[in-house]
Amino acid sequence: MYDVLKTINSPADVKKLNNKDLEILAEDIREALFNRLTKVGGHFGPNFGIVEAEIAMHYVFNSPEDKFVFDVSHQSYPHKMLTGRKNGYIDDDCFSEDSGYTNPDESVHDWFNVGHTSTSISLATGLAKARDLRGGKENVVALIGDGSLTGGEALEGLDFVGSELKSNFIIIVNDNQQCIAEGHCGIYHHLEELRKTDGKSQNNFFKALGLDYVYEKNGNDILAMIKVLQKVKDIDHPIVVHINTQKGKGYKLAEENREAWHWCMPFDRKTGKWNFEFPSETYTSLTAEYIMNKAAKDKDFVVITPAMPMTAGLLPELREKLKDQYVDVGIAEEHAVAMASGVAKAGGKPLVVTAATFMQRTYDQISQDVCINNNPVTILLNYASLESLTDVTHLGIFAIAAFSNIPNLVVLAPSSKQEYLNMLDWSIEQKGHPVMILIPGNEVTNREADKDYDVLNKFKVEKNGEKVAILALGDFYQRGETLAFAIEKELGFTPTLINPRFASGVDEKLLNDLLKNHQMVITLEDGILDGGFGQKIAAFYGDKDIKVKNYGLKKEFYDRYNPKELLKQLGMTNEQIIADIEVNINF
Amino acid sequence: MYDVLKTINSPADVKKLNNKDLEILAEDIREALFNRLTKVGGHFGPNFGIVEAEIAMHYVFNSPEDKFVFDVSHQSYPHKMLTGRKNGYIDDDCFSEDSGYTNPDESVHDWFNVGHTSTSISLATGLAKARDLRGGKENVVALIGDGSLTGGEALEGLDFVGSELKSNFIIIVNDNQQCIAEGHCGIYHHLEELRKTDGKSQNNFFKALGLDYVYEKNGNDILAMIKVLQKVKDIDHPIVVHINTQKGKGYKLAEENREAWHWCMPFDRKTGKWNFEFPSETYTSLTAEYIMNKAAKDKDFVVITPAMPMTAGLLPELREKLKDQYVDVGIAEEHAVAMASGVAKAGGKPLVVTAATFMQRTYDQISQDVCINNNPVTILLNYASLESLTDVTHLGIFAIAAFSNIPNLVVLAPSSKQEYLNMLDWSIEQKGHPVMILIPGNEVTNREADKDYDVLNKFKVEKNGEKVAILALGDFYQRGETLAFAIEKELGFTPTLINPRFASGVDEKLLNDLLKNHQMVITLEDGILDGGFGQKIAAFYGDKDIKVKNYGLKKEFYDRYNPKELLKQLGMTNEQIIADIEVNINF
Repeated sequence: MYDVLKTINSPADVKKLNNKDLEILAEDIREALFNRLTKVGGHFGPNFGIVEAEIAMHYVFNSPEDKFVFDVSHQSYPHKMLTGRKNGYIDDDCFSEDSGYTNPDESVHDWFNVGHTSTSISLATGLAKARDLRGGKENVVALIGDGSLTGGEALEGLDFVGSELKSNFIIIVNDNQQCIAEGHCGIYHHLEELRKTDGKSQNNFFKALGLDYVYEKNGNDILAMIKVLQKVKDIDHPIVVHINTQKGKGYKLAEENREAWHWCMPFDRKTGKWNFEFPSETYTSLTAEYIMNKAAKDKDFVVITPAMPMTAGLLPELREKLKDQYVDVGIAEEHAVAMASGVAKAGGKPLVVTAATFMQRTYDQISQDVCINNNPVTILLNYASLESLTDVTHLGIFAIAAFSNIPNLVVLAPSSKQEYLNMLDWSIEQKGHPVMILIPGNEVTNREADKDYDVLNKFKVEKNGEKVAILALGDFYQRGETLAFAIEKELGFTPTLINPRFASGVDEKLLNDLLKNHQMVITLEDGILDGGFGQKIAAFYGDKDIKVKNYGLKKEFYDRYNPKELLKQLGMTNEQIIADIEVNINF
Repeated sequence: MYDVLKTINSPADVKKLNNKDLEILAEDIREALFNRLTKVGGHFGPNFGIVEAEIAMHYVFNSPEDKFVFDVSHQSYPHKMLTGRKNGYIDDDCFSEDSGYTNPDESVHDWFNVGHTSTSISLATGLAKARDLRGGKENVVALIGDGSLTGGEALEGLDFVGSELKSNFIIIVNDNQQCIAEGHCGIYHHLEELRKTDGKSQNNFFKALGLDYVYEKNGNDILAMIKVLQKVKDIDHPIVVHINTQKGKGYKLAEENREAWHWCMPFDRKTGKWNFEFPSETYTSLTAEYIMNKAAKDKDFVVITPAMPMTAGLLPELREKLKDQYVDVGIAEEHAVAMASGVAKAGGKPLVVTAATFMQRTYDQISQDVCINNNPVTILLNYASLESLTDVTHLGIFAIAAFSNIPNLVVLAPSSKQEYLNMLDWSIEQKGHPVMILIPGNEVTNREADKDYDVLNKFKVEKNGEKVAILALGDFYQRGETLAFAIEKELGFTPTLINPRFASGVDEKLLNDLLKNHQMVITLEDGILDGGFGQKIAAFYGDKDIKVKNYGLKKEFYDRYNPKELLKQLGMTNEQIIADIEVNINF
């Protein structure tokens, strides 16, 4: 097992292999991928499809002198195995040594910690520019998938390289005919035209932008890949190497269902069944259910997503049913949000949905296209929680700080099922404001909730008490509940428990009322403190006689943490907070 | 004077004109443009070049049923004159009635308040989508310049329209062969190829993306424009109408120097001389001077700008001198920032510069590509002040809130000339952090300043005092100085005056020390309070015995305000602040 892979300690070892061993190496790598992915999960399709290309890259080029930049870098596992990190795949004890993305802390062969799409060309132009300024001669290679090509940054990068970079630069376009879900947009059809004409179509998007171009139809053939890369190595100008590969190659289920196998949880190799059961009801499933019902009833309602339908639970069969009321714009967050503003302006009811971490890609469009125009767009953020995604490139803990300070944007933080659904319905129907809703990151709980949120920044007192007021925002409301219970038990009084609901403003009247019989206000939020909700409360009380303590995360890029341990480190257990209360109030 | 223009009260009046009167109307509009622009300034080149096209648009289509979306909308003045707003151009008393951009508050013919580039196609797709959902038949028309086409959002929009929109959609590409400065990137060369072949080149960027295409070489000929627009009116699929126009047409000086006449201050029509003298030394001129000296001494230093060289005072002759150490990436902020990260990673010294309002277009790249990777990029923001740009789409008052909460990013707010230059030099030379510097928005003042900022978040006590501590950030430092003076005079004690220098963190030791002999801390910042600097201070002191009051702007989209009056409204005069102090401290 892994006979050839075991001999590979660095790219130099790849170069020594004969053709037969190169083929065996590809088999070994796929076995190693199975070993890791069946046990810990990760990106499946992108890695299975790129094995041969990455072997060829290391065979032909000399990393790290020659520099590789991987787009999203969720397809970098074979590269990792070839650069001294095979143990993260073949030795179960070493899985945690490797992140799911390129990571300069792991290896000199990785240039960037990357997890968002469409950045590789631009990042690589920087490496090339620095090289040119000091007169270097190494190759700079960006590997980018067809899905990532739909993002604005990648298109800006191509446009730049096409005329402004006059030196060595190699862009490998990995065309596996699939975005995360099915591919969308003009570039997809154009890549198809190029494949059909074996790269010879007169009309060529890349050439139009000034780039040289070569096509390789056998992107899963190591020798063919070696040949084409040898041809472009040390080239003195930018070139696109368009390769045709099969996403998920080597696993029939993944070849046949590319969307389902883009990414996987631990699974049984024989059946393909995930060793993981989602709860029957999640906030994501509730979202899908809501969308389907709403769309059926209201023809003005339209869901727009930048290639992330699964963040709303929209499986292919649901998307099919939605027909024209579903729009996938490709990985083009900026376009998605601006388009939604247009829909709203013309009287439609747009809902934009993606992961919180990706919504920051369209900060300016939210501010300018939506909020300055005050158009009633509903923006839905999934995974806006420290519990959701723990990779440093995918954190949801920055959403409140990033978005709640944009004027006109009403940021809602629901704390339970009914409240979430009511807010969603209110938001889509109202015409007064752009609204962002943070989908709770915890398990589904339920309580009665108001239907109307027209009075902005009206916090809800869920339980009246004294001495201490707890403002527990969104999916941290349940923490507030258990804290209130613990205070009652440990300190012998009933604190006031408040569900703020609005993350983007303060309820001045209520906060003033609290001054009467409270000595301390505690804020709890599922995000970083800097720029967040709690600091607005602290600032409001700055010149008043009451203590305020904000609980939340530090302004840090956490990486692959245990949420529960992190909260303890941050002093956020009930015991720790009660200790803080004891020094701050008089009994 | 204005004989024909005076008869135009709505687009219906345009349709009644004969060919000769249409020509006179164009002359009248140019005269009206001269009247306004010589007296109040504004965008010159874009409007003078588009007169005929906009007359033709209103002649052929039926606005507002047919919907026009203008990219940046700095070329919408002729459109405004044709839609009931001519007085804003021909009657000096009415200048203030019209903003410099489209504005739905002014007219039903304007669909969006727009001031950033590259958004028109995406916004218009939303109008089209809502139309299609309700079965409407009107035309949707986006007008976009060649410069704006280099932005990622526009490219995403084109890519989307090319295959996903199956209905009427007309994109007029106004090719005036000029960005704000000279044009850059592949698309520029491609547009040239299309012009040279009269639109017949086999290779066609727009067709590659799936769009229909037609070329009109006489974009400044009303009848030719009417003819081509009549041809595409009511078309049942998306089409690009590529028109060739002359930027600044009708004013020789502007035709000859398109960059200088993109935008103008009030000027003398005969000589072209601006009726305005910039001070001989500004923070912008200091920036240019610094860049030229640094570049000459250090070959690893490179300036990258997304088409805004003037924000660093880089006139054409200076750019010429910088050679390879100057990169204009087109209006592609995302690419600019990611590229800078690559340069820094490879050991170069990149400086990215643009206006504060445009830097938010690359929020995700600053966070992901730069800050997660902790690459030492220097990002320079001009106009990050309430004093700089007062149009709602160009405000600099959101910069601190937007950027200072991104982990790893050191946001510096210099308070004088020497401090600014020292910070710039320190930032470019250090290798530990990504750094953003907010160029002061006030007049140049000078004081001695530290050279080393390695100890992060170290505030500087400029004057020791008691009772009240003033934390006056960046270009509000001078306000802090006069406030301190006023307190001394009015209240009879010397307050402590602190220059925080760092907008992105707090000096915990210093803040704790202040507790000893201060009862109140005042923060002053040139930006909105929500998510800003002062709220960090208030949160720090939340559970301590000291009063905090934050002074700054509200979280609002202010529009065309008087800065001095605004500060008064916000209670920020010395008299008002002293009144607040009096109720908060014991003498």
